[in-house]
Amino acid sequence: MTSLPSASDIVLDRRLFGPGPTNAYPEATAALGLPLLGHLDPRFIEIMDEACEHLRTVWGTDNARTLPLSATGSAGMEAAFVNTVGEGDVAVIAVNGLFGERMCDVAARTGAEVIRVDHQWGTPIDAERVLAAHPSPKVIAAVHAETSTGVRSDIAALGAGKGDALLLVDAVTSIGGIELEADDWGIDVGYAGTQKCLGVAPGLAPFTINDRAFERRITKPQSWYLDLGMLGGYTGGATGKRTYHHTAPVAMVASLHAGLRRVLAEGLPTVWARHQAAGDALQTGLQEMGLELFAQEGYRLPELTTVKVPEGVDSAKVRGYLLETYDIEIGAGVGEFASTVWRIGLMGPNANQASVDLILAALRDAIDATK
Amino acid sequence: MTSLPSASDIVLDRRLFGPGPTNAYPEATAALGLPLLGHLDPRFIEIMDEACEHLRTVWGTDNARTLPLSATGSAGMEAAFVNTVGEGDVAVIAVNGLFGERMCDVAARTGAEVIRVDHQWGTPIDAERVLAAHPSPKVIAAVHAETSTGVRSDIAALGAGKGDALLLVDAVTSIGGIELEADDWGIDVGYAGTQKCLGVAPGLAPFTINDRAFERRITKPQSWYLDLGMLGGYTGGATGKRTYHHTAPVAMVASLHAGLRRVLAEGLPTVWARHQAAGDALQTGLQEMGLELFAQEGYRLPELTTVKVPEGVDSAKVRGYLLETYDIEIGAGVGEFASTVWRIGLMGPNANQASVDLILAALRDAIDATK
Repeated sequence: MTSLPSASDIVLDRRLFGPGPTNAYPEATAALGLPLLGHLDPRFIEIMDEACEHLRTVWGTDNARTLPLSATGSAGMEAAFVNTVGEGDVAVIAVNGLFGERMCDVAARTGAEVIRVDHQWGTPIDAERVLAAHPSPKVIAAVHAETSTGVRSDIAALGAGKGDALLLVDAVTSIGGIELEADDWGIDVGYAGTQKCLGVAPGLAPFTINDRAFERRITKPQSWYLDLGMLGGYTGGATGKRTYHHTAPVAMVASLHAGLRRVLAEGLPTVWARHQAAGDALQTGLQEMGLELFAQEGYRLPELTTVKVPEGVDSAKVRGYLLETYDIEIGAGVGEFASTVWRIGLMGPNANQASVDLILAALRDAIDATK
Repeated sequence: MTSLPSASDIVLDRRLFGPGPTNAYPEATAALGLPLLGHLDPRFIEIMDEACEHLRTVWGTDNARTLPLSATGSAGMEAAFVNTVGEGDVAVIAVNGLFGERMCDVAARTGAEVIRVDHQWGTPIDAERVLAAHPSPKVIAAVHAETSTGVRSDIAALGAGKGDALLLVDAVTSIGGIELEADDWGIDVGYAGTQKCLGVAPGLAPFTINDRAFERRITKPQSWYLDLGMLGGYTGGATGKRTYHHTAPVAMVASLHAGLRRVLAEGLPTVWARHQAAGDALQTGLQEMGLELFAQEGYRLPELTTVKVPEGVDSAKVRGYLLETYDIEIGAGVGEFASTVWRIGLMGPNANQASVDLILAALRDAIDATK
């Protein structure tokens, strides 16, 4: 046995400029260090209730059933489908990237009939095509901000034309970064993640479902863990009493609570404007370097920029150099674009001009140094 | 807007002597405060691989597929069933408390034929009855340490007689607290939690599955999030490469890693002995106070003691008094024993004589003061 220090004892201080997780707000990190509370402690219930209330604000909803599910964003996707569709139900799914693809897989496992409406990666969803795909689907599902391509789609257009269908929306990469108005846009069920623009560690899925969707839900879904009917105690409000379903991840909920307070203290429109300004500056800077953006103009997410790897440049080498020389992480592309696209995220605490200047300078160096 | 301090800004420092979560080891809390790593960062992969290796030690297994699932212990239960049984498969489930009950609900949602073998709450599982319940079940499932009743059951006896069946075991409240030998006892699939004897915040489900069970698994389970076939990249070892499935909860995994290092630095047999000594002292002390224990003698968990609420004493008032006067949480009973049994946990960092002395003195005062 040795007590000598080892290199792995060095704590790395990465700048997380990839597609997420991003660095956490200091307030969110500090909350993780506080003593734990029991999951039925009156103080924890206050924290949970406040977190749910703040989540309503970032979702743009009045839904009583708005809560952080106790797993990551992908479990939020699963919760959305298993609670709304079952054997033979028709689910129209807009696919313009990896997360639309994933929706098809998740939905099919419920026995639903999946009608996928494919779009070229890098382009937004065409609401007209999606709405025309089936005369009476039970659900229509779409991704607001595609993390795989850096594209924003118009959710309000789907909500306006959805008719009797329920609208399911993935807001993992949009929540807390760009405008999101669940109620105004007609979103019936939405799920998100904590580790992007909310600036909190990954591990929870902020979730919202309105009365309309809840009334039509699958009453005994195939997932016990994600059964929204059993999670009633979490939603507070009406009953004011929390019932035991599973042990809440108390540290992560306290961290989300603190992160949301941070975001709302700054003010949601201000936070959105900060993300927009950082993204605009980054995208301008990249183009000034002679690089070409991947996502279609007019639909680019400010919080997550996709950029084509220049001819003759080795994507992985550049990413490795950034990590080793600058402690900076950026993301590779996804699927067929794995080695031809980079994904650069400026989310949460990283959405500022200092990050823009740092990543532009470091990327310029990395491209030169690895040629 | 006010910047005055409010009472809710006071950070409570609870002693968590309930059924979990327990207080975390300082090392586990400290790790939560470190800067986040990306979930594909080489350093994070080292941390994940080491955490999986340490989990093998606390599980008592060589299973390559041993990992922390990205949700709480109840999701571990769901993962165990959805990956091993489907429509029409026979699942024999031993029920001697709430978590055996829950297994029946979770298993039935896969379409499996559930054969439940009921036992009186407070008593251990009768292996002979369970093994005789069906000639050729696909799985036999049981809870090692019933959190609802404080009872330990003999898992090795089930493993010895299981025949061709797969043995699924809930080790949520046993892992890291009492002897657990997954391989020696014939456990094919096991799940646990972090928030009990491992002394880490809730949010992950340590999970293990052997080759025999993996080869017979449901190849496209109803849960995408818990599909063990897709989680291959997490298991490291063979491929040495991590593939993206979902964003790992990096802060929680780092915390688990640190907590496991803490436990293994002390030494697993020493940690078990510490839990045993604390539990013995507590149970002796409670009986010396004239209280009656609930769990059957000879099968009492040291880490979680169930005790009957004395005649004329108000369970809820005592618990409220402990919380308000001593910042001590203990648990109520479950189901029909909700107001007639208390559950007192001494887990992880709380398994020591100081905690025993504190809870005995505080409980004596609380019973007197609330009469």
